[in-house]
Parts: sequence; structure tokens; C-alpha cells
Amino acid sequence: MGCRSAWSTATWGANEHERPGVWVTAAQLAVVALGGGHGLHATLSAARRLTDDVTAVVTVADDGGSSGRLRRELDVLPPGDLRMALSALAADDGRGARWTAVLQHRFGGSGALAGHPVGNLLLAGLAEVLGDPVTALDEVAALLGVRGRVLPMSRQALQIEADVVGLDRDPRVSRRIRGQVAVATTPGQVRRVRLLPTAPPACVEAVDAVLRADLLLLGPGSWFSSVIPHLLVPELLEAVVRTSARRVVVLNLGPQPGETAGFSAERHLHVLSQHAPDLRLDEVLVDAGTELSESERTHLVRAAAGLGAMVRAAPVAVSGSAVHDPAALALVLADLTGASVRERTSGRDTQAWR
Amino acid sequence: MGCRSAWSTATWGANEHERPGVWVTAAQLAVVALGGGHGLHATLSAARRLTDDVTAVVTVADDGGSSGRLRRELDVLPPGDLRMALSALAADDGRGARWTAVLQHRFGGSGALAGHPVGNLLLAGLAEVLGDPVTALDEVAALLGVRGRVLPMSRQALQIEADVVGLDRDPRVSRRIRGQVAVATTPGQVRRVRLLPTAPPACVEAVDAVLRADLLLLGPGSWFSSVIPHLLVPELLEAVVRTSARRVVVLNLGPQPGETAGFSAERHLHVLSQHAPDLRLDEVLVDAGTELSESERTHLVRAAAGLGAMVRAAPVAVSGSAVHDPAALALVLADLTGASVRERTSGRDTQAWR
Repeated sequence: MGCRSAWSTATWGANEHERPGVWVTAAQLAVVALGGGHGLHATLSAARRLTDDVTAVVTVADDGGSSGRLRRELDVLPPGDLRMALSALAADDGRGARWTAVLQHRFGGSGALAGHPVGNLLLAGLAEVLGDPVTALDEVAALLGVRGRVLPMSRQALQIEADVVGLDRDPRVSRRIRGQVAVATTPGQVRRVRLLPTAPPACVEAVDAVLRADLLLLGPGSWFSSVIPHLLVPELLEAVVRTSARRVVVLNLGPQPGETAGFSAERHLHVLSQHAPDLRLDEVLVDAGTELSESERTHLVRAAAGLGAMVRAAPVAVSGSAVHDPAALALVLADLTGASVRERTSGRDTQAWR
Repeated sequence: MGCRSAWSTATWGANEHERPGVWVTAAQLAVVALGGGHGLHATLSAARRLTDDVTAVVTVADDGGSSGRLRRELDVLPPGDLRMALSALAADDGRGARWTAVLQHRFGGSGALAGHPVGNLLLAGLAEVLGDPVTALDEVAALLGVRGRVLPMSRQALQIEADVVGLDRDPRVSRRIRGQVAVATTPGQVRRVRLLPTAPPACVEAVDAVLRADLLLLGPGSWFSSVIPHLLVPELLEAVVRTSARRVVVLNLGPQPGETAGFSAERHLHVLSQHAPDLRLDEVLVDAGTELSESERTHLVRAAAGLGAMVRAAPVAVSGSAVHDPAALALVLADLTGASVRERTSGRDTQAWR
């Protein structure tokens, strides 16, 4: 334990699986970020400050909003989280910014297109024409000037099903809730999630990226619907377990209303273990501003140690908000890997998300 | 009159406005094609074989299909004809072909997106984000590797209104029919068309292109809804009248069912004059396979001469069909301008249109 830098990074607990053999340079550092939605956008925005070799591995179980409408209507991968990940890695130049704005633009009005981002429609059309979602993603990545890659965790659209208690008078009654939106917004407590179909095939390019990574980021994000799903794809979990990458869990800045309401930091780690007993970690990153009692801190350190990880506290939140600050997160990742943070030429990190 | 080449081009009548001063080379030849739909696709596919400096000036009065749905829902320029023109000028390389296929791809199924080509949605989204349809077209042109440019005849979406007779028992009764689809499919006879709003502002870039052109192509296409509308935009007509370009009307291979059913070749020219009395032409191109009696031929030559043009007959149809053959059309345009025809590297001219 000790102060590791001027901006007060603290590490608590010993890391029994420290990997001194991981040698990286800024140019070569290969980062893989697993997640979905805004959490993934934050880690990608941080990672791109260190290296061009960033791979996003994105959940494909969304069934809400434009993504839900498109998967029902066209039988394509839900494109929303994929589009957001592409935007996070888009080039800083004029063309990248212009196309990002177009892909993120949602049609307004009250007609058939209302609420669809242009990028979702483009990804759906590309996937239909090119016959493969990864080829479609690579094509849009080229359009945006993405360095790195955005991949789905599976080429197959998935559903999330959860065992939820607390929905009945009898709190012991467990109900099956199906669909990402339903799980993310349940007023009950999620006990366990499954993917449907169970044990789906992993995207092989994602498995390869995990295996050759230097740094693996899991979270932040909706824990049951954006973070844990990756661990339920057997080949992907196997790669996460086998890779020599440094595995870092980035904890949420607060419990997510709905699926993790009332969850302690420690409990976030327990549910990871519960869904993936073989999972080992190296670091658990918690925002320095997180208010933890001495007892909560002890429990968190113990839970992390149970996964082989030490806990690192660093200021990673946008001050006064529950949003990760990519610049601060990048500093921590740099400290973790020995990479250096590069200058950004635009302020896209702070753009409004819709 | 006489055979002008081995492939039996014949010219009938003298051209009182021959422009010997127009000097062009293959590299510099500036071609502007005015029209919409499949007719414009044919002239663009021909012109690109001669030069990279091709500008399409496209009607923006479509109110049918995907274009009609989009202009009603989003208040954008109807994108369909613009998209088709972009496709006609797309690069022959892998990227150009891939993106063309994506832009032309129509969503299937029976949902809210059914029937929308991806390119229409992309053009609509780009126009909303970039705030200008010409900027949006230039962006898609860059994506497709278009050499040349696709422009709307006006930045404002327009409507066509026609005076139509023959819809009542009394054949003298004239009715106003509004909308491109209604005009194009009327069972009556179209006497005259107007644009709504009347005298709309021209796209200034289109006016500039017409003024600096070496060769101006009008038609083929739906005469009242794709060819004549350009002449009803005052600044555009003025440019067509003023330009030193050689002005060539490419006649349809047969009457269009609906709006020009029963029209003779001669009558096609008369309605041009009727709508634009100041219009002067240099050449009227008719397919050599067109069956004309001696009397019909005389009438056609007289009508052309009235516009200052000679009639040129050349084989420009795909054999046994009512479709223009871009390769054959290119040979005629080359002969007309002294430019040479370049090799094509792909067979996209023959792709299926939907």
C-alpha cells in the first residue's frame, strides 16, 4: 500500500499474480476492452490515448431502442453498442469527426425512422450486403479512420435471461426475466444471468485479440447486461483466463439503478466469480472518491484477493459526476502498463451522448 | 446527311448552330448530364467513359417510393435519383463497388424500413447533420470514389403539377394533377407541367457546371417529370441557353407508358420548346433502330431544325431492348466531341437496378 504518484493512486493488498514479464511500449501496447454502452466508450476513449492497438469486444444482447427494433425487423446484430464503440475510436481529423457526427445522428420526428441513429442503419445495411458483421464493422471503421478494431463478442445476436428475486410478495421466489432492457430495469434483484442461446460461439477475431493482448479491461458498465455476458461465451472466457494480458476490472462509480441497485463494490466482484469461477484478475480499479468504510474496504480487498487481484484507487471520475473521465483513466492505465499518454487533438471525449 | 462512321451514324439536316470552336480533349472534356432516374444513369455511365469531369444535375421532385416517404417524413430532398446518379459515377475499384452495393441495397422484410435503400437513409442523415444537400452529396461521392459531381437542380424539394386532359368524358376538360408519381402514371395526356413552388432557386453549383461545360446532355428519361423540370428552374434554363457547351438531347427509345404514351419523337421536341421557348439545341440523338416513316423523319428533322439542331441517328440501344447502352452512347458522344473512349475495368453498367 502506498502513494504511487502525485495524483494519489493508492494500491491496497498484494497482487499474488503480478506479471512482471509483461513488457510493453506505447507503440505496441495491445489493449482489449470488453463491455458495452457508455462504460465501454469510456475505456476506449482512455485506451486510445495510450496506443493505436485498441480492440473493443462488444456485447450483442441489446434488445432496446433502435437496436432492438433493428434486430427484430432485420435479424441483424444489435448495432447500437457497436456504433458507440466505433465512435469512441474514430479519428480526430475532420473526416472522422464528420462521419462520427453522421453515424451518431438520430432521425427525429414522429415517423418510421424516428430514433434510429444513421450509423445503426448503415451497420445493418452493410452487414446484409457484405454478409458478415465483422466485415461490416471493419468497413465503417475505415470510414471513421478508426485505429484499432471493434468486434462483437459473438457473430450471433444473443438474449439475456436473468433469475430475479423480489418481484413477488415472497422474496424467495425467483422469476426468469428475459431481455436486456427487462433485466437492466427490473425492480427485483438479479441473482444470475444466462445467455440465450447458451454457450454461443465467440467471434474468433475477438478471441485472438484477447489472447495477444497486453492489457484487458473489463467494465465499467451495466454489470449483468454489459460486463458479465462476455464471461458467458465459453471460448471468450477461456481466452480471458488463458491470456497473458494484465486483467483489470474497472468498477462502476456507483451502483446502477435497476440491475445492481444496492450492490457493494465487493459484491460486483463476487458476481463475476459466481458467473466465471475460473476468472483471475490482476487489478481492480476503484475511483479514489468512492466512500468506503474501513470494513467495506477490507471486504473489497478480500474479494479482489480471492480473484488474485489487488485494488487500486485512483481519481478516475469526472469531478462531481458518476461518469469516468477518459483522461484520468488513461493516466491510470499508463501507470499500470508503463505506457505514456499521448496528446489528443480534439475534445470529442466530452461530446454529448444520446 | 451521310454515314459518319463504321457503325452507321447518320446525321439528318443541317446544324445552323454548329460550334466548331468547342475544343476538347479526353482529359478536359466537361460533361453535364441533366435528368433523373434510369435515363440519367445511362448518360452518366456513357460520359464517364470519356472523362472524369462529369456533373449530374438531378431532378428533385420525386414523391414516390422511398424518396417520397423520406421527403414527407424528414423534409429532405428526395434522395433516390441522387443516389442512382452517384452510383453511376462510383469508382470501379473494390471499395467503390462495395459501397455502391451497400448504398443501393434495399432493406427487405415487412417492417418500417422495408424498401428503403441504405443510400437514401445515409443521404438524408448526412444532409440533416451537415446542413446542406450538396455537402452531403460531395461526402458520399468521396466515399464512392466518384470523379465528377452529383448536384440537385435545386436545394429545395419541388413538386410537379401537370395539366392533363383525357381524364373526363369530355376530352377538352383539363385537370391539374400534382406529384411526380401521379403525373408519370396518369392515364390522361399531359399538356404542360409546372414546378411548385414556381421559379425555384437553382443550385448555384449546377448553374456553374452548365456554364463551364463542353457538352450538355438532356434526356433520356421521363420527359415531363425528369427532363423538362430542369428547364423550369429559371437560372438553370438561363445557363442552358447561355452556355457555350454543345447541347444534345438524347431521345427516349420509345414513348414512356403514361406521361408520353403515343408521343412521336417530334412531339418530344415540341414540348421542350413549349416549356422553354428560348431553348436552342445542337444535336438530337435518336437510336438508329427507331422505326420512322419518311414523313415522321421529315417532321423530326423539321422540329430539330426549329431548335437549331440536327438529328443524329446512331445505334445506342441495348440490342432488342428499350434500354440505352452506355458503351454505344459513349462512342457517339466521343464522335460528337472528338474525345476518346477509355477502357472500363468493371461491368457495372449491366448491373440490375431496383
